[in-house]
Amino acid sequence: MVDMLGRGDAIPLNRALELLDNTTFTKPEIERIPLEDICGRILAEAISSDEDLPHFSRSTMDGYALKAEDTFGVTETLPAYVKVIDEVSMGKTPSFHIARGEAAKIPTGGMLPAGADAVLMFEHSQPFGGHDIEVLKALAPGDNVIHKGQDISKGAALLFRGHKLRPQDMGALAAIGICNVLVYKKPVVSIISTGDEIIPPGRPLNGAEVRDINSYNLSGLLLNNGAMPSRKGIYRDDFNTIYSIVTEAVKTSQMVLITGGSSVGTLDMTGKIIDRLGRPGVIFHGVAVKPGKPLIAGCVDGTPVFGLPGHPAAVTVSFEVFIKEVLRRLTGELQGESGTCKNIIKARLTSNISSQPARTDFIWVKILNKDGELYAQPVLSKSGLIASLVKADGVIEIPADKRGLDKGDEVIVRLF
Amino acid sequence: MVDMLGRGDAIPLNRALELLDNTTFTKPEIERIPLEDICGRILAEAISSDEDLPHFSRSTMDGYALKAEDTFGVTETLPAYVKVIDEVSMGKTPSFHIARGEAAKIPTGGMLPAGADAVLMFEHSQPFGGHDIEVLKALAPGDNVIHKGQDISKGAALLFRGHKLRPQDMGALAAIGICNVLVYKKPVVSIISTGDEIIPPGRPLNGAEVRDINSYNLSGLLLNNGAMPSRKGIYRDDFNTIYSIVTEAVKTSQMVLITGGSSVGTLDMTGKIIDRLGRPGVIFHGVAVKPGKPLIAGCVDGTPVFGLPGHPAAVTVSFEVFIKEVLRRLTGELQGESGTCKNIIKARLTSNISSQPARTDFIWVKILNKDGELYAQPVLSKSGLIASLVKADGVIEIPADKRGLDKGDEVIVRLF
Repeated sequence: MVDMLGRGDAIPLNRALELLDNTTFTKPEIERIPLEDICGRILAEAISSDEDLPHFSRSTMDGYALKAEDTFGVTETLPAYVKVIDEVSMGKTPSFHIARGEAAKIPTGGMLPAGADAVLMFEHSQPFGGHDIEVLKALAPGDNVIHKGQDISKGAALLFRGHKLRPQDMGALAAIGICNVLVYKKPVVSIISTGDEIIPPGRPLNGAEVRDINSYNLSGLLLNNGAMPSRKGIYRDDFNTIYSIVTEAVKTSQMVLITGGSSVGTLDMTGKIIDRLGRPGVIFHGVAVKPGKPLIAGCVDGTPVFGLPGHPAAVTVSFEVFIKEVLRRLTGELQGESGTCKNIIKARLTSNISSQPARTDFIWVKILNKDGELYAQPVLSKSGLIASLVKADGVIEIPADKRGLDKGDEVIVRLF
Repeated sequence: MVDMLGRGDAIPLNRALELLDNTTFTKPEIERIPLEDICGRILAEAISSDEDLPHFSRSTMDGYALKAEDTFGVTETLPAYVKVIDEVSMGKTPSFHIARGEAAKIPTGGMLPAGADAVLMFEHSQPFGGHDIEVLKALAPGDNVIHKGQDISKGAALLFRGHKLRPQDMGALAAIGICNVLVYKKPVVSIISTGDEIIPPGRPLNGAEVRDINSYNLSGLLLNNGAMPSRKGIYRDDFNTIYSIVTEAVKTSQMVLITGGSSVGTLDMTGKIIDRLGRPGVIFHGVAVKPGKPLIAGCVDGTPVFGLPGHPAAVTVSFEVFIKEVLRRLTGELQGESGTCKNIIKARLTSNISSQPARTDFIWVKILNKDGELYAQPVLSKSGLIASLVKADGVIEIPADKRGLDKGDEVIVRLF
């Protein structure tokens, strides 16, 4: 069905996501980078260890290395006695052997000498004249020892391809001697601002000009999601002008975002440009969401191209709901269970919200903490106001099959 | 009370945090940076707007600007008629005036012409021969219009000092013409690795050497928390050597982390160095937490200095619980309600965990999602293993007054 302005029906949110999911985008490229730069990057190789960690059995305590059998049956009132024959130095391989009735002083992290199989903590010993000590506690073999390969064993899988690298992963890679890592290149995303009325933020306003809000909002969203924004500037609402800059952007970046087309004519023009540039062209034009209904999604020979409505709130929703999903595929990230619940919280609504059926509504909320209980307070305002985005802490979704939500309802908030 | 090794009692977690809270650290410095670089930085000035946004009343729809009173009482079956006298161009100040019975075509974002006070959507109009249109819907003044200053009014407070800047804040600042922003400088944090057995990750292992895990783990944690890590290298466990590198680090950075001192002797040495370097010196040495008990916190004339235990798990807990709090003060961030709940989720324990009373225990967990319900599965392992940190998605805390937690208990998980 097409309305009097020639616009087709907006498709449901789920259908739009499904269409994007079924589109093939160009796979990310890879690069090898030094260990110190990997935090937050996406691993492009599976990593297993070429060596045992630790590569020797070591003590987890300051104490005495000995044979556990020398301590069997020992209590504080019925101690055993062993002779301290030597001392283990940090980082050195002990040159001696521990026999029955013998012990060696050992620091935390020291290599267990041959013959010893447990470490008695200093706290559980007493000096007993000469080199002898009293053993005040029974030990089992392996007590206070980390065995060779117990942390990471040689050949064991450590990290999977598509994993987003965290600080502890840097530590683990350092531990097994990996100094360079294969990661996916960050996708470069071109941002093209269009509109005869749009000017850069540094210029004074004349007449009915407005400043370019969206390319800055989008830059930040891209940076926060592992991409490299490339702001291409502001262009007039003219087919040839926009066609030529989009042509160049598709060649030099992994995704193209065209913002500013609030009016029907501009978005139609964006759609025509996407269709003309490559296959499959426009994937959908119009989604039953508010804000953000006029969104255009397309693909030009493997490169995703989005035509975004002009309102800042619509841009943010389009990004959070659609662009982020596509971007994740361009970054190569495969999310684990916990990745999907980061920055997602549950809170109770502080007031009723009504919503139109057959449309997914996104409502900005402010989070309030009352005695440890979290509440979501809707930030109500006319569509498109940037101030409401600034006041909000996150967004909630009212599904298309609901006519609204009630005060006290538990809602899921995406924080941003 | 001092034990047989000369160690004092470990203080409770709350007391340790209170002592840090009561210590005065040097305030962060400020710098002015361009708008495109502010994402994630901490604002060092309060920002209010010097102008109205929008600076003119504008249409939120494609339609006709007119006087609302010309539509009063109108229904689809009882339309009104107005004459379209002109058209508003994007970015231009209309040169004409709308009188009773008149209208002008206007695009979304166009400036409302003088005399008009509402916008009729195209959908609610019909052509009616010549320049006349049928009006099919009654409007109230202000319908489909954003008034001058309705988004951000001149003089209104927009962002507070200490706010962590987000993408939408970049958009809002662009909107009101702010191209440079005063932010706090990122604190530089020196990481000093100590230990006779420690070698860099790129070198093959000899004897009982181990690779430097902690300085990489810490680098990542610092990067993720708004700081600039400066790895100073690996130093032998020798008073003068460490004294001299810490002396230099205290002068050239805003925080100093000394890692690797697992053994009592090394930590005592670190404590002595902190005490000798400046006031007030050591704040506490030993906290009743597991892992991470031997932590030393100090302050050298306003610069925080931490002596960290050598186990990677203890390093991570020390960072998450103590260092992060101090770091936030060095970055200048003042957290809002939602900042405190980011990356915090609730989940149910999959098994019982026991814990020692009078000690706060931190347990690594993996997050499982079963039909939308989140579960926290403890990653049990000997203390200090890096692999358990890699397997985990987050950490839970068992308070000092509990003897453990039961399967099915709801726990709060800090994701990392």
